[in-house]
Amino acid sequence: MNAVTLKAPLAMTVALAAFPAVDPALAQDASLEERLAALEARVAAAERRAEQAEQRAIRAENQIAQRQAPARRTTEEEEPVSAPESALEEPTDERLAKAVRHAEGKEGFSYEAYARSGLLIGENGKSVPGGPYLSPAGPLGGAVGRLGNEPDTYVEAIFNYRQRFDNGARSLYSIMLADSVTTSNDWTAEESNLNLRQAYVELSKLPSFTGPFENASIWAGKRFDRDNFDIHWLDSDFIFLAGTGGGIYDVQLTDQWKANFSLYGRSYSDFDIVTDETAIDGDTDNLTLTANNYVGNWQWMISGLSAADNDDRFNDVRTDSRQVVTTDPDTGDMVVTEETTVTNRGEKGADDGFHTMLVYHGDTFFGLGEGTFKGAILHGQGLGAEVKNIGADGNLTDDAKATRIAVYGTTYLAPGWRVAPMILAETSSDRYVDGDDYQWATVNFRLANELTENFEMQYEASYQYMDLDPKDYRERSSVSGGYSKLTVAPTFKPLVDGFWARPEVRVFASYSDWDDELNAYSDDDSFGTEGFTGGQWSFGTQMEIWF
Amino acid sequence: MNAVTLKAPLAMTVALAAFPAVDPALAQDASLEERLAALEARVAAAERRAEQAEQRAIRAENQIAQRQAPARRTTEEEEPVSAPESALEEPTDERLAKAVRHAEGKEGFSYEAYARSGLLIGENGKSVPGGPYLSPAGPLGGAVGRLGNEPDTYVEAIFNYRQRFDNGARSLYSIMLADSVTTSNDWTAEESNLNLRQAYVELSKLPSFTGPFENASIWAGKRFDRDNFDIHWLDSDFIFLAGTGGGIYDVQLTDQWKANFSLYGRSYSDFDIVTDETAIDGDTDNLTLTANNYVGNWQWMISGLSAADNDDRFNDVRTDSRQVVTTDPDTGDMVVTEETTVTNRGEKGADDGFHTMLVYHGDTFFGLGEGTFKGAILHGQGLGAEVKNIGADGNLTDDAKATRIAVYGTTYLAPGWRVAPMILAETSSDRYVDGDDYQWATVNFRLANELTENFEMQYEASYQYMDLDPKDYRERSSVSGGYSKLTVAPTFKPLVDGFWARPEVRVFASYSDWDDELNAYSDDDSFGTEGFTGGQWSFGTQMEIWF
Amino acid sequence: MNAVTLKAPLAMTVALAAFPAVDPALAQDASLEERLAALEARVAAAERRAEQAEQRAIRAENQIAQRQAPARRTTEEEEPVSAPESALEEPTDERLAKAVRHAEGKEGFSYEAYARSGLLIGENGKSVPGGPYLSPAGPLGGAVGRLGNEPDTYVEAIFNYRQRFDNGARSLYSIMLADSVTTSNDWTAEESNLNLRQAYVELSKLPSFTGPFENASIWAGKRFDRDNFDIHWLDSDFIFLAGTGGGIYDVQLTDQWKANFSLYGRSYSDFDIVTDETAIDGDTDNLTLTANNYVGNWQWMISGLSAADNDDRFNDVRTDSRQVVTTDPDTGDMVVTEETTVTNRGEKGADDGFHTMLVYHGDTFFGLGEGTFKGAILHGQGLGAEVKNIGADGNLTDDAKATRIAVYGTTYLAPGWRVAPMILAETSSDRYVDGDDYQWATVNFRLANELTENFEMQYEASYQYMDLDPKDYRERSSVSGGYSKLTVAPTFKPLVDGFWARPEVRVFASYSDWDDELNAYSDDDSFGTEGFTGGQWSFGTQMEIWF
Repeated sequence: MNAVTLKAPLAMTVALAAFPAVDPALAQDASLEERLAALEARVAAAERRAEQAEQRAIRAENQIAQRQAPARRTTEEEEPVSAPESALEEPTDERLAKAVRHAEGKEGFSYEAYARSGLLIGENGKSVPGGPYLSPAGPLGGAVGRLGNEPDTYVEAIFNYRQRFDNGARSLYSIMLADSVTTSNDWTAEESNLNLRQAYVELSKLPSFTGPFENASIWAGKRFDRDNFDIHWLDSDFIFLAGTGGGIYDVQLTDQWKANFSLYGRSYSDFDIVTDETAIDGDTDNLTLTANNYVGNWQWMISGLSAADNDDRFNDVRTDSRQVVTTDPDTGDMVVTEETTVTNRGEKGADDGFHTMLVYHGDTFFGLGEGTFKGAILHGQGLGAEVKNIGADGNLTDDAKATRIAVYGTTYLAPGWRVAPMILAETSSDRYVDGDDYQWATVNFRLANELTENFEMQYEASYQYMDLDPKDYRERSSVSGGYSKLTVAPTFKPLVDGFWARPEVRVFASYSDWDDELNAYSDDDSFGTEGFTGGQWSFGTQMEIWF
Repeated sequence: MNAVTLKAPLAMTVALAAFPAVDPALAQDASLEERLAALEARVAAAERRAEQAEQRAIRAENQIAQRQAPARRTTEEEEPVSAPESALEEPTDERLAKAVRHAEGKEGFSYEAYARSGLLIGENGKSVPGGPYLSPAGPLGGAVGRLGNEPDTYVEAIFNYRQRFDNGARSLYSIMLADSVTTSNDWTAEESNLNLRQAYVELSKLPSFTGPFENASIWAGKRFDRDNFDIHWLDSDFIFLAGTGGGIYDVQLTDQWKANFSLYGRSYSDFDIVTDETAIDGDTDNLTLTANNYVGNWQWMISGLSAADNDDRFNDVRTDSRQVVTTDPDTGDMVVTEETTVTNRGEKGADDGFHTMLVYHGDTFFGLGEGTFKGAILHGQGLGAEVKNIGADGNLTDDAKATRIAVYGTTYLAPGWRVAPMILAETSSDRYVDGDDYQWATVNFRLANELTENFEMQYEASYQYMDLDPKDYRERSSVSGGYSKLTVAPTFKPLVDGFWARPEVRVFASYSDWDDELNAYSDDDSFGTEGFTGGQWSFGTQMEIWF
Repeated sequence: MNAVTLKAPLAMTVALAAFPAVDPALAQDASLEERLAALEARVAAAERRAEQAEQRAIRAENQIAQRQAPARRTTEEEEPVSAPESALEEPTDERLAKAVRHAEGKEGFSYEAYARSGLLIGENGKSVPGGPYLSPAGPLGGAVGRLGNEPDTYVEAIFNYRQRFDNGARSLYSIMLADSVTTSNDWTAEESNLNLRQAYVELSKLPSFTGPFENASIWAGKRFDRDNFDIHWLDSDFIFLAGTGGGIYDVQLTDQWKANFSLYGRSYSDFDIVTDETAIDGDTDNLTLTANNYVGNWQWMISGLSAADNDDRFNDVRTDSRQVVTTDPDTGDMVVTEETTVTNRGEKGADDGFHTMLVYHGDTFFGLGEGTFKGAILHGQGLGAEVKNIGADGNLTDDAKATRIAVYGTTYLAPGWRVAPMILAETSSDRYVDGDDYQWATVNFRLANELTENFEMQYEASYQYMDLDPKDYRERSSVSGGYSKLTVAPTFKPLVDGFWARPEVRVFASYSDWDDELNAYSDDDSFGTEGFTGGQWSFGTQMEIWF
C-alpha cells in the first residue's frame, strides 16, 4: 500500500465528518452547493480509490495469469515441438499439481526401503553367528528375538512408478532389489547376494470394472503378496506368500465380504532324482492357488498347492564318489575313473498340499486397553505344511502336517512404557521322514522406556523351547531343550513415536544361553561351532529403517 | 463476496430505478434535491464497494507477494549459508519451475523401464522352455512371435540424471541395470544375472558448437546406440549396436542430410587359441566405426569392423582330458597326471568386417492407409555378417556373408481391430565353416480386438521356415522344416490405445508345433529335450510395461 | 482489460476536462444542474469501475483460494480416507514447498553418482592394461596419473532418502550400488561386480542433543567415512576409512575444536591358518576406533586398530597337492588319494595397530596466490601401516611401519591456464616379512588450457620412482626404477569451470614407459605381460561424471 492510499481514508473521514453537521433547513441553496462540493470531493476520492483498486486488481490478475498462461498451450499429451521452450517450462496449476503428486509418491517415481546394518561382536572381539533363525528350530520357522542378534547388512530397495491415465485408470509398477551379506567390508562383489526380488504391475480404478469388481485391482509378475504381514520382533511373517503369477484384489462379494484371488508359481531347483543308482538333476514347479477373505476384523485364507512330478524325487540323497585306477582297454594305460555311489536316504516329496489360516486383526490390546493385537492359527498338509512360506519347501512329504499359532499385541503400560508380548508355536510331524516330529514354541517380550523425544531404552527377553525328532533326516540328531536371550539396547530415534517409528540407531548388549544338547542337532548350523556353545555375550551397533 | 456487497447492487438498482422516473420539468429544486440525495446514496455505495475492492486487491497482492518474496534472495547459484532456512525453503517461481521440470523428467533424476514377468506352464503343469529365440534358427537371429512364449522375468531399470548449465548447455547421464531369470522364486541371488548394461554421458546445446554442429550432441561411455529400433512382436531389433565408445549425433551436413558418427568397442572374451596342441585363453576386441545418414524418410547406415588378432583363434575347439597314472621319477610313487588333447574342429575367425543397412521409415501403412511401416535390408560380411548385433559375434569367418530383410506395418482394419503383419528373413553362408549355409524366414501376424477401454483380445500367429546346413559346426546337424505358433491372449490395460500402450496384464494359451527333424539340430537347444518335441500347449499369465 | 474499461478513462477525462471550464459566477442554477450532471456521469463511471475492480479482485481471490483450500484439510499426518481426492491433490503452499525440497534433493529421494566409462586401446588395436595402480608400487598404494590410463566402466549410484520430523529432527538414509568391469560389452552378467558398498542412517538436529552435542549427528551402518578426501588426479584418497559400524560427528568440544568419533569393523576373509602341516580356513575382524579433530585449517586424526586372533595365521601360505595311487585296505582296489603339502612362507599377521594423520587444508595455492592446497603426513604401525585404507590389510605384521606424505595444490597460472602439481610418497618396512623395505614416490602435474566455454586441452605428466625389496614375499622380486606417462586429452564439457567441473567427454593419447627391471617384480601384475613391457602408446575415449 503506498502513501497516497494510506492518506485517502483520512481525507474521506474528514469529508464524511463534515457532511452530517450541515443543517438542511437553514441553507437550502448553500446546502445544495455545499452538498455538491462535498459530493464532488467524495466522487473524486472514490474515483481515485477505484482507479487504485483497479490497478491492483489488474496487477494481481497479471501475476496469476503469468503462472497459468502455458496451461492453455500444453494441455496436449505431447509438447508441441515448435512451442517456445520458455513457455513450456512455466509451472501451470496442473503441472504444479503433478509435481506435488510426484514429490508425495502418488505419481511417477517413488522409493521405498527396508534396511538394517551393523556390527555383532562376541566377547572375544570377533564377529559371532546370529540372526533370529539361528537355533535348531530356525530352519522350521522357529525364530527367536532379533534385537541385538543380527549380524548382517540386509537391504531392500523398492522403486515404484505410478501412472494415471486420462480415463481415470491407474497403474503401479514396482521392482525390489535386495541384498544380504555378513561381511563388514564396503566392497562386497564376491559375497554379494544382490538380486531382484519383485517386478510386478498392478492396475486399478479400471472404468470397465463394475459391480463387485468396481474397486478391484489386477496384477501379474513377481511379487510378495500384498496381504503378507509380520511379527516384527521375530523378523517372522505370519504369512509370506511370494513368487511369480497373477491375481485380483478387493473383489466385493457382499457388503461385508471382500476377497482376493491369486495364482503363484515357485521353482524347486537343483535337486537329485535317484534312478537306478544314478542321481539326475531335476526341477519342478509349485503352483499355489489362494483365496483371502475379509469380513470385519476376520481374515480367512485358503490355498491349494500342486507340484507336478515332485513325487519323482527323494528329499535326502547322498552322492559319494571315489577315483579308482583301471586299465584302458584300448591303450593298456592305467587311467583313473570316477566311481559314484548314490544313496537315497530320504522319502519322496509331495506333489500337492493344502493350507489355511484364520486371523483376527484386533484394534485393542486383547480387549484390555488401547493398542493392537493379531492372533492367527495356521494349518497345512503335504506341500502346505510349510505354513509360513507357502509353497517354498519341496522336500515336504505327502503325509507332512503342521499347525502353528501366532499372537502378539502392543500397548502402553504407563506413559513412556511400551510393551509387546508375543507367542509363536508350531507342531509338525511326518515332515520329511515318516514318524519325524517337531515341536517348538517361542515367547518374546519387547519393552521400551521412552526417555526423551530422541532416546529410549529398549529391552527384549526371548525364550524358545524345542523338542525335535528328525529321525536322522540329513543326519540331524534328536534334541530337546531351551534357548534364551536377554538384550538391552539404548536407542536413538529422530522422533520417539511407538513401536513402528524408524529410523533407529542403536547400541546393544545381549546375553544368550541354551541347553548343551542343542549343540548336537546338526553340523550345518551355528550351535556347537567353535566358541559358540552357549553362554554367549555379544555387543554391537546397528541402524534400522523402513519407509 | 460477503452479505454487504451482495446487498449493494440491490440498493443501487432501487436508487437507479427511481432516478429516471423523476420529471425534470415539474420539480426543478425538488429534482435537484432528489438527484443530490440519489447521487449521495450512489457515491456512498461506490465508496463502500471501492473500499471492499481495495481491501480484496491488497489481500491478493499480499498473498502473491508472500510467494515471490524469497525469489529475490535466492537467485544465487549456491544458497547463502547464512540465509535463514525458512526463507530458503519458500517456493519461488524459479524453484517451482525446477520442481515441475524435475517431476516431468526434464531435469535431475528420472526413471525409465522395460519389464516383463510371468508364468509359462506346459500341459503337464510344469514350466516349459520358451522365448522368441527357441527354434534352431534362434541363435542366428531367427526370432518367432513372443506372445505367450516368454518364460522369464526380464527387467531393465534406467536411471537418468539431466543437468542444465548457466550457458544453456545440457547433459544427460544414464545408467541401466538389467536382469533376466527364469526361476519363479522371489529370492534369486544364485540365479541372478543383474548387471550394468549402460553408463554414458551425452552433452547437447553446447554454445561452442556452431554451423553443422549447432544441434549436435556428443557422448562417451557404454550404451545402446540411440538409433537402434525394433520389431516388438518378435523381441528383435532391426539393428542393435551397443558397447563402449564415443560419438556424435545430429550433424547437419546439408539442409536435408543429418548424420551420426560413432566408434563402439566390444570384447570377445574367453575363447581358446590353439597353438601346438595346446589351448591358450585369449581375448580380442572388436572396434566398429559407424555412420548413420538420414534424408527424409530414408536411413542409410554403414559400418566397418576391426578385431586385431581375432584371426589367431579357431571358432570350434574341443578340449578333452583324462587322468593317467605315471611314476614320479623322484620318488618312485605312482602319481596321477592330467593328459589333455586339444582338437581344432573349426576355422579361424575374421579380423575385420563390413555392414550396411538401408531403411525406409514409413508414416502410412505401406501407402494403403493410416498407420506405420518400416522396411529394411541389411547386409554384412566377415565380422559384419551378424547383421543385427553388430560386432557381437567373434566366431564369424572372413568369408561369412549375410543378407536380411525386415518389414512390418501397423494399421486399423476396422474400428477396434488393429493388425500388424511382419516378415523377417535371412540368408547367410560360409558363416562359421567354409560351405555352411543358413536360410530362415519368419512371418508373424499380430491382431488385437479392442473390446472395452480396459480390455482387448490379442491374437498372434507366427510361422518360421528354416533350412540350416551347419556343416557339423559344434556338432550341429543339417535340418530343414517349419515351426508354427498360435496364441490367444485376453489382455487388460489401463487404457486401450494401440499397439504400444503399456502396461498390460495378460493371460494366454499358446499352441506350437514343429517338424520332427528340427529336434535333431543341436543338443544344446530346447527342441528335442524331454517332453518338448512338438505339439506343445502352454498357458500362463504375464505383465509387460515400458515407459 | 476489456474494451469497456479501456474506454472509461477517456470518458472520464472528457467529463473532467469540461468541469473546470464552467464559470461558476455566470450560471449558478445552470452550474448546479451541470455540476450535478457531471457528477452523475462521474459517479456512474466510478460505479462501473468499482464493479469491475470488485469482480477482478473476487476472481483473484478465488484463484488464490483454490490453491490454498486443501491446506486446511490436509494438515493431518495421514490423508483422511473420506476426503475428496481432487481436494487432496491441489497443491498448497506447504505441499509446493515440499515438492521444491524434493526436486532440490533436500527431502525425500535424491540421487548422486560417480561414473567413468571408456575405451583404452593400445597401438595394436587391442585393449591394454591400465589404471593408476598398475605399477609394482600400485598394491602398496603408489598410484600414478589416471588421465588416459583407465580401462574400466566404474559406476557408483547413490540413492539417498532424507526425512524431516515434526520436532525438527532430520534423518538421512543412503545406499550405494557400485560396479567395475573392464569388458566393453553391454551385457556383463558374467563379469559383473555389482555390489552394495554403503547402507547407513545418519540422524541430525536431534532436539535432545544439547551443549557440545547440539550440532552433532549420529550414524550406524556400512559407509565411507564422511571425512575421507582424495587427490583426484591419482584416483587416490588421502584417507579412505570404510566399513560397518557407528559414530558421532561434529561434537563441539570448545569454540575452536570440533571432533568426530567412530568405530568401524572390517572382515579379513578366507585366509589360511597353518596348523600341523594343514591349512584351515579362517576369518578375523578388524575394529578401528578413530577420532578426527578439527581446529581452524588443521585436521588431526588418530586411530587404534584391533583384530583378535589375526596373529594366528600366516600371510603367505602355499598349498600344493598331488594325487597318489594307493591301495584301498578294504577292497584291495587301487584308488587315488590326494596328498597335500602346506608350506608356510610368510609371517604371522598383526593383531593390532596404530594410525595417525595430520592435515592442513589450505585456502590458497601454498600461500603464493589464489587457489587451494592440501598437505598431509600419515604414519601407521602394525595393522595401521596400510595408511590410506585403514584396517583393510590383514597381512601386515606386528612390526610393519609406514610413513606417507601427500600434497597437492590448484591454481591459475594465467587466464585459461589451470595447473595442479602433486606429490605422493611413502616409505615402509617390515611390512609383510622381517626386513622388507618399500620406497616409492609419485610426482604428477595436471595442466588444462581452457579454449572455449565447452572445450579445453588437458595435459598430464606423471613420474613414479620405486625401490621395492619384498624379501621374496609371494615370490616377488626386488626391483627399483622409474615409470613415466604423458597424456594429451582434448576435453568437451558443458561448462568449462575449473578442475572439478563435470561431466567431461574426452579423447586422449598417452605414452608411458618404464625401466625394464620393473617387469620382473611379480607374475601377478600387468608389467611384463605379453606386449606390455614398456614404451606403450594408448588411445581412447572416456566420459567422467559426478554430482
